[in-house]
Amino acid sequence: MEGEPTRVMLAVNESTIKGYPHASISSKGAFEWTVDKIVRSNFSGFKLLFLHVQVPDEDGFEDMDSIYASPEDFKNLNNRNKAKGLHLLEYFVDKCHEIGIACEAWVKRGDAKEVICHEVKRTQPDLLVVGSRGLGPFQRVFVGTVSEFCVKHAECPVITIKRKACETPQDPVDD
Amino acid sequence: MEGEPTRVMLAVNESTIKGYPHASISSKGAFEWTVDKIVRSNFSGFKLLFLHVQVPDEDGFEDMDSIYASPEDFKNLNNRNKAKGLHLLEYFVDKCHEIGIACEAWVKRGDAKEVICHEVKRTQPDLLVVGSRGLGPFQRVFVGTVSEFCVKHAECPVITIKRKACETPQDPVDD
Repeated sequence: MEGEPTRVMLAVNESTIKGYPHASISSKGAFEWTVDKIVRSNFSGFKLLFLHVQVPDEDGFEDMDSIYASPEDFKNLNNRNKAKGLHLLEYFVDKCHEIGIACEAWVKRGDAKEVICHEVKRTQPDLLVVGSRGLGPFQRVFVGTVSEFCVKHAECPVITIKRKACETPQDPVDD
Repeated sequence: MEGEPTRVMLAVNESTIKGYPHASISSKGAFEWTVDKIVRSNFSGFKLLFLHVQVPDEDGFEDMDSIYASPEDFKNLNNRNKAKGLHLLEYFVDKCHEIGIACEAWVKRGDAKEVICHEVKRTQPDLLVVGSRGLGPFQRVFVGTVSEFCVKHAECPVITIKRKACETPQDPVDD
């Protein structure tokens, strides 16, 4: 008999271009790889923890077309963005339920690398999985920064999954 | 029924101070962690590939007390060092046989980070596991360089396992 399941945290984000509720290819890829290569058929041996970090724009506004007239509007904005994040997580939770793997999922806001490491400290998973696009210069720098920071600072082993060049979508709208 | 086992390459090295045939604490730790948290009881679902890279000293001589008088002496030196590396691998192969996990092990010489990435390209494992000491400044820089390079350049997902401060031996001779 095995003891407690291995708790694997996956940091997932939305598609750069399609936005919510679409998961990024690198997030889907990291999830599918984890199930295929690590969990395999040992469904009861693992529990997946999905963390989505919402990164506010530099000025703190996600939706430039909205009009903010009262503190209530900001509250609604936050709720709305949180709902978007929850739809993203729903994708992964549904998949886990289909497969039969226990899971938990939650949303936090802030700087992705800082929040991920803070959540690792708080929830103490056995393993953190971070996907990485390996795409154009901007994404490489950005995603590289998050994964490099986590490899150095997260208080648990970290697996970095690079996307292969052949997995980069022809049409960036699919990313 | 599951398909081919997940092939996990572990880059292992000898104790910094005790030398061959003693495995480093970080190598042992990475191996034990992989078995406990990834393989768990699914022994037939995984195959472990142990790679030990022998790093020549800067001047190419490991043994300053030996006298080299002919090309044969160099040949013997190489065989001797290779034998040391094999003793190191024997530790891990024995453990796998006790547990019942399929494995392979081999020795290569050269620059650790380059050789590891080259062997990943050649043998195409599903996952590369690299331990890291997280010790004093020299080791941190050295091991950090190897694991950082592999995270960026190895053509497969890479897991970096840092050693916890509490696992650093009181007596460095045990490292």
